[in-house]
Amino acid sequence: MKSGDKVLINTIDKKLTGIYMPNSTKEKIFIKLDTGYNVGILKKHIKSTKVIKAFKEKKKNLPKHTHKKGKKTITILHTGGTVASKVDYETGGVKAHFTPEDLVEMVPELEKIANIKTELVSEMMSEDMMFTDYQKILKAIKKHSKSDGIILTQGTDTLGYTAAALAFAVEETNIPILIVGSQRSSDRGSSDAAMNLICATEYITKSGFTGVAICMHDSTSDDKCAISPATKTRKMHTSRRDAFRTINDTPIALIDYKTKNIQQIKAISKGKALKIKDKFETSVGILKTHPNMDPKLFTFYTKNFKAIVIEGTGLGHGPTNLGKDNLKNYKILKDYIKKGGIVAITSQCLYGRVHPHVYTNLRRLADIGCIFCEDMLPETAFIKLSWLLGSYPKQAKKLLTKNLKGEINTRLNTDYL
Amino acid sequence: MKSGDKVLINTIDKKLTGIYMPNSTKEKIFIKLDTGYNVGILKKHIKSTKVIKAFKEKKKNLPKHTHKKGKKTITILHTGGTVASKVDYETGGVKAHFTPEDLVEMVPELEKIANIKTELVSEMMSEDMMFTDYQKILKAIKKHSKSDGIILTQGTDTLGYTAAALAFAVEETNIPILIVGSQRSSDRGSSDAAMNLICATEYITKSGFTGVAICMHDSTSDDKCAISPATKTRKMHTSRRDAFRTINDTPIALIDYKTKNIQQIKAISKGKALKIKDKFETSVGILKTHPNMDPKLFTFYTKNFKAIVIEGTGLGHGPTNLGKDNLKNYKILKDYIKKGGIVAITSQCLYGRVHPHVYTNLRRLADIGCIFCEDMLPETAFIKLSWLLGSYPKQAKKLLTKNLKGEINTRLNTDYL
Repeated sequence: MKSGDKVLINTIDKKLTGIYMPNSTKEKIFIKLDTGYNVGILKKHIKSTKVIKAFKEKKKNLPKHTHKKGKKTITILHTGGTVASKVDYETGGVKAHFTPEDLVEMVPELEKIANIKTELVSEMMSEDMMFTDYQKILKAIKKHSKSDGIILTQGTDTLGYTAAALAFAVEETNIPILIVGSQRSSDRGSSDAAMNLICATEYITKSGFTGVAICMHDSTSDDKCAISPATKTRKMHTSRRDAFRTINDTPIALIDYKTKNIQQIKAISKGKALKIKDKFETSVGILKTHPNMDPKLFTFYTKNFKAIVIEGTGLGHGPTNLGKDNLKNYKILKDYIKKGGIVAITSQCLYGRVHPHVYTNLRRLADIGCIFCEDMLPETAFIKLSWLLGSYPKQAKKLLTKNLKGEINTRLNTDYL
Repeated sequence: MKSGDKVLINTIDKKLTGIYMPNSTKEKIFIKLDTGYNVGILKKHIKSTKVIKAFKEKKKNLPKHTHKKGKKTITILHTGGTVASKVDYETGGVKAHFTPEDLVEMVPELEKIANIKTELVSEMMSEDMMFTDYQKILKAIKKHSKSDGIILTQGTDTLGYTAAALAFAVEETNIPILIVGSQRSSDRGSSDAAMNLICATEYITKSGFTGVAICMHDSTSDDKCAISPATKTRKMHTSRRDAFRTINDTPIALIDYKTKNIQQIKAISKGKALKIKDKFETSVGILKTHPNMDPKLFTFYTKNFKAIVIEGTGLGHGPTNLGKDNLKNYKILKDYIKKGGIVAITSQCLYGRVHPHVYTNLRRLADIGCIFCEDMLPETAFIKLSWLLGSYPKQAKKLLTKNLKGEINTRLNTDYL
């Protein structure tokens, strides 16, 4: 059996047919079933094996695209990720190495809706993304800003972070920029890639929306996609297709996959000519608080970062040990802020709003200058602070709690609790 | 106006009546409205003020409790928190300083259901809790293990962490130990304290449940409380009464507040005589990964902690920069594990399961010995690892991925993805 071969495995209790994967271990072999799922089989349970069809690489025969008049032009910027990925026969895992052309070939419906241009920005692994990758993407957005819309494909792991980064960095735009990912790899039956891409294309051509947003499955069934606010949406499941949930807000719109009807939930504003600010400060850290937290962490973060996003508990608490005996963390933060450090307070609850006025200890954090970030997601606060310190360093503190791109839900912003 | 006075504030556009709070700033005064909400009023908007009733501290006249035969005995262990708190007139925030007797006085219904004993374990601020606090609580649990059940009250901020800690540390018990908190302070009309305490008391006296669980509101209406699994439940909202949500599992039971009917969802096992292991290793850190992450963080954590819980992205990715150019974080982790460090992988998605076999980069993390913690919450993994290294140091690695107290949902644990 060679990697890629279609094989029949006869085990002690069942027969399995699938593609032989190269990631076998001493004890197990792996095959990819026709359903797209990978299954491991203990070698000692195998009675016999048979190659049904030997692996042969397919030749690509890409169709030539002709520009159709009267149709809008959408540029698909590709960065890799599950949305266009296949099994890597070197390690057996899923790996992103489609070209943008593969993407259009994979979803031919796209060309019926719009003229599709594609560009590979750079192969990026979502979990490894750097601010320099955001800058590459922003450059590509600028290059293709004459398109009627842009779709950015990327891996879902840090798709929410990228969405927030583009939302802040693209200060003005008069076209839609939708970020699309996929939770299941494209060579699997259950892949959500095609539907997410088609819904994004439909929304771009029909809605008149301007700005940055996410387009992913709204539920586990293939009925609707949600256009979700870039600064308020978070990956909330490791594998489900509807993993991207809007937190402390509502989706912008829903697209019915069958009828292609758009249910516009939020009002659309017209937008202005493209304006990009693409500087990000790299010296920002996220510190999640928890019981029995070592003060060393506060010391390290305050010494090594210009700004810290604290993912506190509840309404924004940190283990500042404000009792009579131990004020260590509190003093560290106080000194840090005095010397110009910025401390942004968010909540690990994710849902709801932090508030400095309810509890004694919170009030004390506010008194030393910690900035309470309302109902902003910790990840969005991290991106916003990095961007503000890069692009508006002098106004960063002031702008942090000002709603710039929907990151603070001002509808609920009152003195009441 | 003095703190605690009932006052009438006449502003340029409205009249407000409430308790004057001492946390005024240069620009604002604060009053607590009859609804329990605090409101800030700009001083420049105030036309006149009037004291309606001067503040006078109430004398306490606690009733004497007599033991009633035929009724079960429940011990309420108190540690502070919103469940029994009132406004602190020094800073204007809510502060925990009720006695356990105050708790029973506040909810007289409890004594109709059971004989109530109370003990103040120690005043703890939830956000400041240390493993030594868990040990104090465990000592009190041991002391009162002859009761028919124990209710532990604490602040909600780290209630989920405490629940997990007690679930692991109380290895065996033949009585129910329910942790109860409250999201709204007891002197507010919307407080959930009484209902949560009453439902916990009902469940203890009627269900036959043994083990550690959480009892909090199931929804925002005052209709049901949920008994939630100690290792699978997380505070998911900063202020809502139904903030505690069970992740990757179902509640154990629901209690109807009106009818007191119990809907038992999970089967109950009989339990064994109390057995406690209360050692926790303090050298465990939580490291949340994100884009543009500084390798300094990996260096610091591996140098300073015996074990690290990585809150990775998606299926358990970290920014290990596995490309050709930069393997820094990956190498740091590899060295660390070689030298005996433990790296536990969880997901910041919270929902779903991490899995080392899907992507190339994940497989590589597994290859160097990172331990993928299935569908365990990051917070639970932190507590479990701290407890294992304290109580079972030699078997810690092996036991981490073994389901001990419901922290891993084995029903879904297959090779399939």
